[in-house]
Amino acid sequence: MSKELPASLRPRPQANLRTPLAAAFCPGGTCLLLAMLAVCVPSRADEGMWLYNHPPREAIRDKYGFELTDAWLKHLQLCSVRFGGASGEFVSEEGLILSNHHVGSRALQRLSTKEHNYLRDGFYARTRQEEQPCPGLEVSVLEEIEDVTARVNAAVRPGLADEEAFRARRAILAAIEKESQDKTGLRSEVVTLYQGAEYHLYRYKQYTDIRLVFAPEEQTAFYGGDPDNFEYPRFDLDICLFRAYEKGHPAKIEHYLKWSRNGPADHELVFVSGHPGRTDRLRTVGELEYLRDWEYPRTLQRLNRLEVLYDAYSARSAENTRRARNDLFGVRNSRKAREGALAGLLDAKLMQAGRASEEKLRASVRTLVESGKLGAGASPAQVEQAWERIAQAQQAIAQRAVEYELLEQGAGFNSVLFRYARSLLRSAVERSKPDGVRLEEYQEAGRASFEHELFAENPVYEDLETLKLTDSLTSLAGNGRYNQPVVRKALSGLSPHERAFTAVHGTKLASPAKRRELYEGGLQALDEAHDPMIELARQVDDEARAVRKEVEARREAIRQAHAQIGKARYALEGANQYPDATGTLRLSYGVVAGYEEDGQHVPFQTTLAGLYQRAAGQNYRPPFDLPERWLANEKKLNLATPFDFVCTADIIGGNSGSPVVNRRGEFVGIIFDGNIQSLVADFLYTEEQARAVCVHSAAIIEALQNLYDAKPLAEELIGRRESLRPETGSQR
Amino acid sequence: MSKELPASLRPRPQANLRTPLAAAFCPGGTCLLLAMLAVCVPSRADEGMWLYNHPPREAIRDKYGFELTDAWLKHLQLCSVRFGGASGEFVSEEGLILSNHHVGSRALQRLSTKEHNYLRDGFYARTRQEEQPCPGLEVSVLEEIEDVTARVNAAVRPGLADEEAFRARRAILAAIEKESQDKTGLRSEVVTLYQGAEYHLYRYKQYTDIRLVFAPEEQTAFYGGDPDNFEYPRFDLDICLFRAYEKGHPAKIEHYLKWSRNGPADHELVFVSGHPGRTDRLRTVGELEYLRDWEYPRTLQRLNRLEVLYDAYSARSAENTRRARNDLFGVRNSRKAREGALAGLLDAKLMQAGRASEEKLRASVRTLVESGKLGAGASPAQVEQAWERIAQAQQAIAQRAVEYELLEQGAGFNSVLFRYARSLLRSAVERSKPDGVRLEEYQEAGRASFEHELFAENPVYEDLETLKLTDSLTSLAGNGRYNQPVVRKALSGLSPHERAFTAVHGTKLASPAKRRELYEGGLQALDEAHDPMIELARQVDDEARAVRKEVEARREAIRQAHAQIGKARYALEGANQYPDATGTLRLSYGVVAGYEEDGQHVPFQTTLAGLYQRAAGQNYRPPFDLPERWLANEKKLNLATPFDFVCTADIIGGNSGSPVVNRRGEFVGIIFDGNIQSLVADFLYTEEQARAVCVHSAAIIEALQNLYDAKPLAEELIGRRESLRPETGSQR
Repeated sequence: MSKELPASLRPRPQANLRTPLAAAFCPGGTCLLLAMLAVCVPSRADEGMWLYNHPPREAIRDKYGFELTDAWLKHLQLCSVRFGGASGEFVSEEGLILSNHHVGSRALQRLSTKEHNYLRDGFYARTRQEEQPCPGLEVSVLEEIEDVTARVNAAVRPGLADEEAFRARRAILAAIEKESQDKTGLRSEVVTLYQGAEYHLYRYKQYTDIRLVFAPEEQTAFYGGDPDNFEYPRFDLDICLFRAYEKGHPAKIEHYLKWSRNGPADHELVFVSGHPGRTDRLRTVGELEYLRDWEYPRTLQRLNRLEVLYDAYSARSAENTRRARNDLFGVRNSRKAREGALAGLLDAKLMQAGRASEEKLRASVRTLVESGKLGAGASPAQVEQAWERIAQAQQAIAQRAVEYELLEQGAGFNSVLFRYARSLLRSAVERSKPDGVRLEEYQEAGRASFEHELFAENPVYEDLETLKLTDSLTSLAGNGRYNQPVVRKALSGLSPHERAFTAVHGTKLASPAKRRELYEGGLQALDEAHDPMIELARQVDDEARAVRKEVEARREAIRQAHAQIGKARYALEGANQYPDATGTLRLSYGVVAGYEEDGQHVPFQTTLAGLYQRAAGQNYRPPFDLPERWLANEKKLNLATPFDFVCTADIIGGNSGSPVVNRRGEFVGIIFDGNIQSLVADFLYTEEQARAVCVHSAAIIEALQNLYDAKPLAEELIGRRESLRPETGSQR
Repeated sequence: MSKELPASLRPRPQANLRTPLAAAFCPGGTCLLLAMLAVCVPSRADEGMWLYNHPPREAIRDKYGFELTDAWLKHLQLCSVRFGGASGEFVSEEGLILSNHHVGSRALQRLSTKEHNYLRDGFYARTRQEEQPCPGLEVSVLEEIEDVTARVNAAVRPGLADEEAFRARRAILAAIEKESQDKTGLRSEVVTLYQGAEYHLYRYKQYTDIRLVFAPEEQTAFYGGDPDNFEYPRFDLDICLFRAYEKGHPAKIEHYLKWSRNGPADHELVFVSGHPGRTDRLRTVGELEYLRDWEYPRTLQRLNRLEVLYDAYSARSAENTRRARNDLFGVRNSRKAREGALAGLLDAKLMQAGRASEEKLRASVRTLVESGKLGAGASPAQVEQAWERIAQAQQAIAQRAVEYELLEQGAGFNSVLFRYARSLLRSAVERSKPDGVRLEEYQEAGRASFEHELFAENPVYEDLETLKLTDSLTSLAGNGRYNQPVVRKALSGLSPHERAFTAVHGTKLASPAKRRELYEGGLQALDEAHDPMIELARQVDDEARAVRKEVEARREAIRQAHAQIGKARYALEGANQYPDATGTLRLSYGVVAGYEEDGQHVPFQTTLAGLYQRAAGQNYRPPFDLPERWLANEKKLNLATPFDFVCTADIIGGNSGSPVVNRRGEFVGIIFDGNIQSLVADFLYTEEQARAVCVHSAAIIEALQNLYDAKPLAEELIGRRESLRPETGSQR
């Protein structure tokens, strides 16, 4: 299927009716009618990233006649793993974890060298001994959830100034986390839900010895590259297999997913269990306008700059391509996603409808407050003015947003070596303070993970780090900032290149042993090191902390205002809602289904045969070429095997690697992308055309058995020892 | 040679001593001494883009013992042609014109179709009949130069307000041009030189029937692509041959360059005659700071965005790659050049030294003014304050710069269809006014060229134009501009995509016949057309004209202030100086010479053998692959033939295609690039490492004869009929 238009050029899908912005997508003059219907007719859309402790039992029972039992839910919860900022799942009792290739790619890149490029060429450990430890990688399983809203609210008394409220909240959250961690030994995190209307404590079991088992070639995993990213139909084997170890042995896993060899049927009900990262569905119109007018354009400027930088560097040699591959992929992926979301925000009809819905909500809230039903603690004036307070705080953040991004979020110091330097410097300072007043990332609850990452062995390429730091310092000095005191300190009278070159070549922080030594030596060791990267981090730290403090106070104001709106909405709508995504475990559901596009039907699944057709149709021109293994062994494959499929489940970035399961809880596929039409999912769910894109369970088995000579692995997945197709599987 | 660092990562070259910024490059503490020496010791550097009517006779006589005679100069002047925004030269008496492939590429792209990709595959017309007319292409030869400074100054009386002065200047320039054109029939343009200290009238002979004769494959012309662009050593056959026709027959040319079969020797004196586009060597430090802090960062943001846009579009298919090729090349080339220039501006030592030199000049000017030597019309206070007035006007321009770029320069409406619409609309309005008060580009002197371009047959790709316009409207609406009245008008309640899609698909302006009809029909025809692209142009025209008017008035103030500084400098330094580049014909000179880099010697020339070595060393990975013709016929070539070489001549963008000639005026090579170290040439000339990069005359003949089966063409160039190497040349 030929697609030459980017996200911004696609026809807009029709929306479902649950969000404030939904009416925007109604055709012609029916908006108002549909918007009014939305109030009284229960949603039939497969919307929602649901909390495991508030699952959509009724909606699923009503629409699909399926009962979500506690046991079913608990099993799926415990099969699901958090994998970096994304998702994965246990798929064998011997600790096998499945995720996407693009989720595992950072680990693959770290394991690769100039001689062994596992990212490009793939990897398969034929024996346990060959399974490769992945330094710095850890996965977590959500074991328990506890509602701690009352305790948090008790500590953050109404009437506190924003900064005091922020400090009080940070202190109580740290105390709750530390107490839980000390008591249970489980990694504990309090998650802010419903914009601050609820706080839940999540306890995780951590696995820190993760080993690589299998990866296909990147060209197969990410077939079609950037042009096909966020598109459908697709032909990608975007998988990667790892194994969790404990005490040197494969972890014994009670809850893992059974494999469905057939995968899903058309229109079958499926569930997705994963870690959606962030949505903005409950934002005010004012906040969306800020995203549209300032944040997205600015972010896209940065992403475009980095894409050109990494692309130009990569073009110089094959080795450069290998070194910058992960940075380039990440930037391209984010850029395309933001372009799609920005195109949605620039649809005036959407924004107008959102404004109308917001007015309506405000009117309902006014009535509610006046009726006294919101209870004590909510002054009518406060709730009424919540929207204004959000707008004001947003405006204040806007004033400092560029500085915050450059100095605190690190856009002005784009180097892993700088991140090491800042982590060492700040952890030494913060560790001398009580836990509750530290910067969040240096609190005790996160210490093990922090150290695990800091001490991990990672390749550092001086040329690439110099290039990145030069570019980001140049950006820091641009747009009239050259003479700002903090920029003068950062450059210290040198050009961006000179400063970057001397810091990268002078620092010792590329060595994990050195980092450990400095970490253990604390402030004195850092002072005595005279390390130029640490000096750079030190020179800009006051300004970075100052802008962070200000932005965090403003965000606290926004959080409180949203919490008030959230409570009012809760009072109006009841528990039948889901919170914006927070990077924590959620349950989505939907059906496997194709869709209509430009008057044509897009079928729900592709086959292996389609891959070969697409490659031939593009004349094998990169990124539509095929790895040698695939070219040479076409005849060994059952080309009718389903390859990728789509479903209506509500997902977003972070769901990558999530398992797709059927009613029996069996693995039928793995999420790896959303189509172009799903890119407005940041702001609203639609199901006319928006789809989650998945690798089919059958394709994984077919490829492992008949292409990758990995029958034992396939058998571990399907849970038996005999081969499915011995007559071809043994020929390689 | 492996080079992994971009422009910003290169060591800085040492400068020569002629410019205000030169002392910046002096090592250690010798700056002051050298800066002082610069005043009394005559320059020995090969610096300068000299006027043909103020040639550097003495400098060349003193340094090289060579006498620039009037006849020698006039011949070279008349052999040189202006080719678009770049350069070329007559190389046969039958109208053959040589330029770069990357200069001719726009014409090649326009001639190409999905079926015949001349840009990628090359082209050779074996007979005159096969030579392909290039619609819209015209070349000019500078025939006469006349100093009209006194006449202009008489019309622009001192004491006029900036806007009045601008109008008065525009009127007198238009009158001079029109009068000259009517009298001589030659295209006449007044060129502002020395920042307004002098005005020269240039008269050009135009050739409008230009036909394509020969082009190599792009992969040979632009070997190494973006990674090797602005690098050296190089292996590029960056040439393209056209023929000028008059009245349907090849033009009979009296002045054309004789061919040197041997090319230049190491350290040989050579001359470059071409059209350098723009330098900023006489800018104040305040102006350079503006470039560094605002203009370059902003321009790079736009270029990065467009590079990602065209790159992503190109990746989708081979046909897309063909369609966007020229846009992508132009953007990449500009981006890399700006990065290099910005890196130079971010060198604090350079800027400090520039500031010191400027202080010194101001002191000298003060003394000069006080002594009364500047003559009447120059009030001491005015001259003294010229720098402040420049800074003030610059600041005022800065306030409107973004708007000017978006609305008037067209960055907000990036489509050739919009440019047609604006041209038609404005020409209809402007033609109703007296010539002297029209916008410059609609004055009678430029009418023939304007119409030639407007009516030329050009392919228009609706998908690409929609994409470009969507992207630029999105950019227009970004950074808080969404609710500005002009942006609301531009979007008219639609999303950027909807607006772009309807305008591109609804307009009739892709048809040259339609454009001619509307041009001839004037305002009424434009009104009645109800063409959506013309409507878009109309909706934003008031605001675009308003911001242009304001910026032009401020520029006039800067021009006047610079003219005063320029006159003072002239009084101090005499005629021994050259003006900043203005896109008009200039003479540069220098020697063929290698240089030292990172402790290694870079030889002055490469050979054909080096090309094959580089391709093999990169494993033939694009952009280091070779066309099939080159792979298959390596043995037919004399691999010892020189390929590319470098010289110290002072060049800048626009010099592409300039002939390099020896003392006898023979063609020894053609400029096609500058190395990384030359990218600071915008601001200052250096010769330690900065080099102009050229194709060698021998490589052109060798390739034509023995690879491209183009012996008749080679013979036309070398001026004889027998082949150089009949034993191999005839085998293909």
